[in-house]
Amino acid sequence: MIAMEEFSSTLLENAVNELSRLPGIGRKTALRLALYILRRDEREANSLGQSIIDLRKGIRYCHICHNISETDTCPICADKRRDNSIICVVENVRDVLSIERTGRFNGLYHVLGGVISPIDGIGPDLLEIASLARRVCEYNVKEVIIGLSPTMEGDTTAYYIYRMLSRTEADKPTITRLARGVAVGNELEYTDELTLGRSILDRRPFE
Amino acid sequence: MIAMEEFSSTLLENAVNELSRLPGIGRKTALRLALYILRRDEREANSLGQSIIDLRKGIRYCHICHNISETDTCPICADKRRDNSIICVVENVRDVLSIERTGRFNGLYHVLGGVISPIDGIGPDLLEIASLARRVCEYNVKEVIIGLSPTMEGDTTAYYIYRMLSRTEADKPTITRLARGVAVGNELEYTDELTLGRSILDRRPFE
Repeated sequence: MIAMEEFSSTLLENAVNELSRLPGIGRKTALRLALYILRRDEREANSLGQSIIDLRKGIRYCHICHNISETDTCPICADKRRDNSIICVVENVRDVLSIERTGRFNGLYHVLGGVISPIDGIGPDLLEIASLARRVCEYNVKEVIIGLSPTMEGDTTAYYIYRMLSRTEADKPTITRLARGVAVGNELEYTDELTLGRSILDRRPFE
Repeated sequence: MIAMEEFSSTLLENAVNELSRLPGIGRKTALRLALYILRRDEREANSLGQSIIDLRKGIRYCHICHNISETDTCPICADKRRDNSIICVVENVRDVLSIERTGRFNGLYHVLGGVISPIDGIGPDLLEIASLARRVCEYNVKEVIIGLSPTMEGDTTAYYIYRMLSRTEADKPTITRLARGVAVGNELEYTDELTLGRSILDRRPFE
């Protein structure tokens, strides 16, 4: 803990305070970053600071899938070449980026903004779950892929969504989940037994 | 490596690029920070961004000791209660903060801005060494404490400064260095043998 009065400058103190609010950045790291910024061109410091201000000011959320976007409808939802009858439900924006990077999915997304976690006080009403149900009815969605992490919270949320979508009045969409199994490139020896067990149950014809 | 075109927003791409220029922050961490900033109030993002811009714009270096300062003379050099006949030579601004935190030093500092390191192409002329010699003559300094890290580069720099100050025309100041020895709270068993050997040679009367 670095005491406040020990910085010789309130500007430095202020920058260290602000930087240390970021997740995973303690006061020591914040000080190192601030001193690094001091050694760079004024232009560089300005463009870093301004990019943060512009980011928060300019970004909104897509009104369809709740992914981040600079427009009302995000580029993925607006892309006519994508299959709007398949929706992949994910926890957050990072998961959209991860799945996009695979290049294996051509449908649309639905970003929940989190997973159900009673211990953290996060119930379904804090997430974009009701809007998912509306979207499924409205857009005649054929398949909903549950793309949530295979954790306790992810599984709870998946089950909640599964039950909710099974009750819809509209044509019920097929509900699928991501395959679970041995990670590509991993040694069987080091795969945990739950995953390995699942990979046996879910075995597929040899192609 | 996250490919550029995979962000759905140039604002996000821009912020991630800028954040990942910071030392120790890769593109994955930068993305995590950017998404964190997106979830905060616009006010918070503004004050973070602005604090970075203000920091670089408002901070200059003390013309006497080269510590960071918001004024021409830093608060330490300007403090009349401090003993201006003792100068502690340190590598960088962080070292000033570290020594100030001990509360055991009441003299002034001289920030070199680095240490001599031929392998990195850093010679004495890139550091505030000539200004140290001038300062010692001008201000009738009685003691120069070499407060450099006991590394190869630190020792080389210390020796260079020692030789330079020994050649001054003015009254030669006493030149001292930080004590080396067993760290307070450390087990002898885990102290390296160079340090332990030094702690025997430099042993002090039991007080």
